[in-house]
Amino acid sequence: MVDLILLQIFILVSLAMIAAIICNLVKVPSVVGEILIGIAISNVAIGGVTIYSTLQLGDANSAEVLSVLSELGIIFLLFTAGLITPFHELKKVGVTAFLAACGGVLATVLIVYFVMLGFGFTSMQSLFLGIALGSTSVGISARAMEQLNILTTTEARVIISAAIIDDVIGLILLAIISGVARGGEINIVDTAVVAALAVAFVLVSMFICTLIAKFRHTDICKNAVAKPREQRLLSPLPFALIICFGLSALATSLQLAGIIGAFLAGMMFAEFRDVWPSEEKFNSLKEFLVPFFFLFIGINVNLSALGLGDAWMIAPILIVLAFAGKIIGCGAGALRLGKKSAGIVGIGMTPRGEVTMIIAAIGLSIGVLTDAQYGSLVAVVIVIAILAPFLISLGFRRKDKFVTKSMKFKE
Amino acid sequence: MVDLILLQIFILVSLAMIAAIICNLVKVPSVVGEILIGIAISNVAIGGVTIYSTLQLGDANSAEVLSVLSELGIIFLLFTAGLITPFHELKKVGVTAFLAACGGVLATVLIVYFVMLGFGFTSMQSLFLGIALGSTSVGISARAMEQLNILTTTEARVIISAAIIDDVIGLILLAIISGVARGGEINIVDTAVVAALAVAFVLVSMFICTLIAKFRHTDICKNAVAKPREQRLLSPLPFALIICFGLSALATSLQLAGIIGAFLAGMMFAEFRDVWPSEEKFNSLKEFLVPFFFLFIGINVNLSALGLGDAWMIAPILIVLAFAGKIIGCGAGALRLGKKSAGIVGIGMTPRGEVTMIIAAIGLSIGVLTDAQYGSLVAVVIVIAILAPFLISLGFRRKDKFVTKSMKFKE
Repeated sequence: MVDLILLQIFILVSLAMIAAIICNLVKVPSVVGEILIGIAISNVAIGGVTIYSTLQLGDANSAEVLSVLSELGIIFLLFTAGLITPFHELKKVGVTAFLAACGGVLATVLIVYFVMLGFGFTSMQSLFLGIALGSTSVGISARAMEQLNILTTTEARVIISAAIIDDVIGLILLAIISGVARGGEINIVDTAVVAALAVAFVLVSMFICTLIAKFRHTDICKNAVAKPREQRLLSPLPFALIICFGLSALATSLQLAGIIGAFLAGMMFAEFRDVWPSEEKFNSLKEFLVPFFFLFIGINVNLSALGLGDAWMIAPILIVLAFAGKIIGCGAGALRLGKKSAGIVGIGMTPRGEVTMIIAAIGLSIGVLTDAQYGSLVAVVIVIAILAPFLISLGFRRKDKFVTKSMKFKE
Repeated sequence: MVDLILLQIFILVSLAMIAAIICNLVKVPSVVGEILIGIAISNVAIGGVTIYSTLQLGDANSAEVLSVLSELGIIFLLFTAGLITPFHELKKVGVTAFLAACGGVLATVLIVYFVMLGFGFTSMQSLFLGIALGSTSVGISARAMEQLNILTTTEARVIISAAIIDDVIGLILLAIISGVARGGEINIVDTAVVAALAVAFVLVSMFICTLIAKFRHTDICKNAVAKPREQRLLSPLPFALIICFGLSALATSLQLAGIIGAFLAGMMFAEFRDVWPSEEKFNSLKEFLVPFFFLFIGINVNLSALGLGDAWMIAPILIVLAFAGKIIGCGAGALRLGKKSAGIVGIGMTPRGEVTMIIAAIGLSIGVLTDAQYGSLVAVVIVIAILAPFLISLGFRRKDKFVTKSMKFKE
């Protein structure tokens, strides 16, 4: 089995590099290429065989190994995003992020619900579609912004903070939907406990960040980090890995996304950035593992299962609504940053991910959603995953031009 | 499932770091601590539960994921060992390595065979035990030497080159043993083809290394690597990963160990070390993944399955013979390096691994070996895994003292 995995990794890393080279040549974020290559791997058949079937990527063991590698990739990505986000910087954008997150979820659910009602869908179907599209998945935006080297901009910080809050809201929505699926009874106490634990986790982590920031400037800490490398008992990388995996595991045990824990862990290390430039250390881990995450998004797309007929009618509408909901809602929440920045925040919050797929699957399993509606939700996730990186890069370029212009004007 | 793996990785990374800190304090190579922690994980029960059972490390999926992580660790370790071994350096030790490899296998098989015959074992049992202990597994030595920062010494180069040749011999022995297991008929043509392919793979890889070394000093190559980083189409790390996994997969498809391909791949990049200090890039990959390899060795040890009674009689004898065979045989082959260096080569070649376990399992399955004999072979692998790093470090320190002394003498 291990032998097969070496061949699989060899092929996947090779394809990811080809994708990166092509994307680099045509000036497109490489995540787009990686997702498209992933889709090709499992959907393009030559002589009846796909790379997916030839490499036996669907085997239980292989699928498990690859999903773990992809999870590790996205965890390291968010950890390093945290590394360049000291808590005092995050605090500055806290209110904006909160408004953007709430605005985005609310606007999306409402817009989708009422438009789909207008198209003659049942009220239950419209609600499911709205809630399914309510939650953001920040991995794609984070990667695109990382490659554009703009993770330290205010917009990026708002997007990532809003995504954390969004994930907590998503958790509550998921609890509500699961209650609906169980036959209408929503256990309010259970839902409240789940939500409270998630909020407590995020708040306690942030409180620890402030403690660390204070501790960082005490003499004890200054002396400890000033020690030459050989005398330190803890090597920084394993220590960072422990905190990273510890908080990721804790986050998942509280039903939050593991990447939220990873981001908070990274933030705890942000205060030590001056003495320990740990981004460098994580760079090769990321370079190796991150492509698996986006390849995996593509590989999991089953184009033939999208369904023909109806899906192609609903999907374009849902895609437009999914974009509109987040851009209007998050944009309104972030309006204090200025129109262009608010637009960027809106676009950065458009990618959907696991929560959408889970709610879609629940809806299908209890017979609320039709195959075509389920397929349309899948299509929304794919199309936005491919479009969002473009739009983010476009948004920042337009804003930069504006900044450059106005700066010139000032001169 | 992915959630569980985050918790597993968290616990394993934490335990590995504790092991490393303790080993660091008592000045012992950390691989010893990692193996011992691994053994504790699966064998020390508190209240009837082990960490192994609590974390469900034995689940098919978890076991697969962890074995892949450990395999990746050892592959990156051997790749970086290759990186600091330019081919022209390896050529210098080629003959010595060849003699050491052949001497080690021959001496071990003969010594074990005749001594066990003398103890009244059947001729078939003695042969199986001898062949099982014939093959070296170089991962443990490579790690110990890496931590001692002596991978570029002549002794280390002889050990790693000899281990490659040893692996080819091991392949032939395995083919012979499999033939014996199938009822005595050894397919000489098949065995010859397998061996020839393995030898061809190693030789062709080395030939490519010489081509690369020549190409490196042509103007085309000089100009290409002189380009600033942004203008290069290929990022070095993905490119290195592709070659590394490509050759590892090829090696396993030829029934060689994957790490042999990784070492040869590293050697191909050794020529570019001046323009691309790629060890740095691989360091964090190694720091994260290598501990899994040694934890996994320990975790796979089932102390209760070692068997009581007989095993404790045979095991000590086999351990002594296993040490003696390699130290005498490899030492004799490497005698031209001087007595102390030859001894170090012999010690570096003592660790046993997969081939020993596979042959032991075959012997058990066809009823040639008893449970006690099988358990003894397992004990040999564990005990040498724990002792060898000590002895390697001791050997180098004794030699250094000698060098220092003789240098003083010269003054």
